[in-house]
Amino acid sequence: MKFITVAHGSGGEETRKLIEEVFLREFSDPVLTDLEDSALLDVPRRIAFTTDGFTVSPIFFRGGDIGKLAVSGTVNDLAVTGAKPIFMSVSFIIEEGFPLEDLKRIVRSMKETAEEVSLRIVAGDTKVVPKGQVDGVFITTSGIGEVLRNGLSSRNLQPGDLILVSGTVGDHGATVIAEREGINMDMDLESDCSPLWDLIEPLLKELKTLRAMRDPTRGGLAAVLNEWADASQVQIEVDEERIPVKDQVRGICEMLGFEPTHLANEGMVVVCVGQDEGEKALDLLRKHPKGKDAAIVGSVVSKGKGRVVLKTPYGAERILDPPSGELLPRIC
Amino acid sequence: MKFITVAHGSGGEETRKLIEEVFLREFSDPVLTDLEDSALLDVPRRIAFTTDGFTVSPIFFRGGDIGKLAVSGTVNDLAVTGAKPIFMSVSFIIEEGFPLEDLKRIVRSMKETAEEVSLRIVAGDTKVVPKGQVDGVFITTSGIGEVLRNGLSSRNLQPGDLILVSGTVGDHGATVIAEREGINMDMDLESDCSPLWDLIEPLLKELKTLRAMRDPTRGGLAAVLNEWADASQVQIEVDEERIPVKDQVRGICEMLGFEPTHLANEGMVVVCVGQDEGEKALDLLRKHPKGKDAAIVGSVVSKGKGRVVLKTPYGAERILDPPSGELLPRIC
Repeated sequence: MKFITVAHGSGGEETRKLIEEVFLREFSDPVLTDLEDSALLDVPRRIAFTTDGFTVSPIFFRGGDIGKLAVSGTVNDLAVTGAKPIFMSVSFIIEEGFPLEDLKRIVRSMKETAEEVSLRIVAGDTKVVPKGQVDGVFITTSGIGEVLRNGLSSRNLQPGDLILVSGTVGDHGATVIAEREGINMDMDLESDCSPLWDLIEPLLKELKTLRAMRDPTRGGLAAVLNEWADASQVQIEVDEERIPVKDQVRGICEMLGFEPTHLANEGMVVVCVGQDEGEKALDLLRKHPKGKDAAIVGSVVSKGKGRVVLKTPYGAERILDPPSGELLPRIC
Repeated sequence: MKFITVAHGSGGEETRKLIEEVFLREFSDPVLTDLEDSALLDVPRRIAFTTDGFTVSPIFFRGGDIGKLAVSGTVNDLAVTGAKPIFMSVSFIIEEGFPLEDLKRIVRSMKETAEEVSLRIVAGDTKVVPKGQVDGVFITTSGIGEVLRNGLSSRNLQPGDLILVSGTVGDHGATVIAEREGINMDMDLESDCSPLWDLIEPLLKELKTLRAMRDPTRGGLAAVLNEWADASQVQIEVDEERIPVKDQVRGICEMLGFEPTHLANEGMVVVCVGQDEGEKALDLLRKHPKGKDAAIVGSVVSKGKGRVVLKTPYGAERILDPPSGELLPRIC
C-alpha cells in the first residue's frame, strides 16, 4: 500500500487500517485512541474555540508543511485571543492516489508541532474523494484553549497605543509564492510557520495594557491593521522604515508586484499595547528567539474614521489599504 | 456578484463582504459576529468534542443538502456520546466559480438545522481555491456538547443486551447513490438526514442500562455492529427480517449490488440497551416522529471473538462482515 485509495475512506476495514497504521501511530492521545464519535474532555469554565481550513500549495515548503501550518495556525489563533491551547481536532480530506509517505510525513509534523506546545490532538476525521475532486490534501483543524486573559479585542485601540510586530513581515507568503513561481532565491528564506504560545504567554501575563493581538495570516499586516482601525474607529500610523522586512521578501515583492504588508505570516504576531508598556512589550518579545526581530512599527494617533496611514522614509504619507482582488490563493 | 471568485478568499475586502453578506446574514450569534480569531465561550466542566468533514455529491439531494448534513452529523455525533449539542464551528472550502445562490442556500439550511436543536454557530472559516482544485464545496464542522451522561462506550456490550435501530436502514446512502446514478425512483424516498437530539435526549435520561449508541453513517449498520462486537469482544446476532428497510432502498441495493446494512444513514441511531429495558427503549423511540420505524433487531449472545451473525428468514446464518473495498465515495 503506497497510495491512498477510495476504499480508505469507505468507513470499513481499510479505513480502520489507515487510522491505526497512519494516524494512531503518531496521534496517541488516549482520548483519541478510544475512537468514539466524540472526545469526552474536562475543560475550564471559560474556553476559546477556533477553526481554520488549510489548503496551502505546495504542501511541503521551506520551513514547514500543511501539517505544521495547520497546528501552528490553531495554536496562534487561540493564543492571540488570550488562551492557552489545550485540545485540537483534525479533519483530513484526501485525494485518491495521494502518496502514503507524504501523508505520514504530514501527520508526524502535526504531532511534533502539537507536542512543542503540549497541545493534545483528541478528535479526528478522514474523507477520501476520487482523483481530481480535490488537489492533494486539505486539512481543517479546530482548537480549544483555556482563557487566561479576558478582554483582548479589536475594539480596544486608543490614541497613544503602540503597534508592534514580533518579527519580519511576509516571510510565509513570500516563501510559498516563490516556490510556486519557481523563483530561485537564497536558501535562507523560509516560512516563519511556527506555534507562538511560548512567545505570547509572557505578554498575557506581564502586560497590563495589552489591547489586542492578531497573527497576520491571509491579508498580512495591512489586513490586521485595517480591521483594528475599523473596529476601534481610530487612525493608525505606521512608519514604513520601522517595519522589518527581509531583503529576499522585498526582492520577491518587487519582482511580482506585491506589498510585503499584504503577505501572510504564519509565525508572527501583531500586538497593540498602551504607550507606557511599548518598551516592555518589545523586551518580552525580543527575549524569545521567535521574537528577535520584534519592532515597534507605529501607533494609534486619533479617534475618528478608521484608517491606516503609512509614513514613507521620504516624509510622504499614504493610505495603507487592506489587500483586495485575486491576491494569492492557497497561501494557507 | 453571482459566483465565488478567488478574491473572496484573499482575506481582504472581498472576504469581508462575503462574510457579511452571506454568512453573517444567517449566522447571527453575537460571539460569531465579533469576528475575533477565537470564540470566547462559557462551557460546562465536562464536554464532548467532535469533528467531521463533509464532501457529499450531489450537494443538494432529496431530503437535504451538504449544510443540513454537516449540522446533523455534528449534532448526532455529540448526542450518541451522551452530550447535548451547544456550540459548533463551520469551515468552508469553496471552488472558484461556485454559484453564490447555492452557497446562500447551504448557509440558510445550516442555520435552520442548528436552530432546530438550539445549537449555536460560534466560529467559522472560509477558503476559496482556484477552479478545478476542489469539487464545489466541502464543509468541515466541529461541535462542543455538554456531557449529560457519562459511560456510554463501544466496550460496554454484555450478553443479553438488545440492539435497536431508530428507523429504516440505508435511506441516506440509497438516496444519494440513486441521484448520482440517475436512477428513477418513487419520489417518496429521501435521505433521513436530520439532527436527532430530541429523539436521543429521553434515552439518555430514562434508560438505566443504556450501553452505547452510534449513528450509522459511512459503513452503515454493519460497520457499527462490527465495531461494537470487536470493542466488547462479543458475538452479536441480528435477525435480517427485523431490520426495517424501505422497499425503494431494497430495490436500489438489488439493482446495484449493495447490502442495505452497508449504506449510510444520517438521521438514525443504533442503540444497545440491557435486556430488561428493550421495550422501554422501543417505546421512547417510537414516541418521536423520527423514531416511528424503530425496531429491536438483534441481541448480544455471548462473550468471545467479536463478530456479527445475520440470521436470514430461511433459518440460515451468515457472518455480517463490515463493508470493505471501494464502496461509495462522497456519501457524506
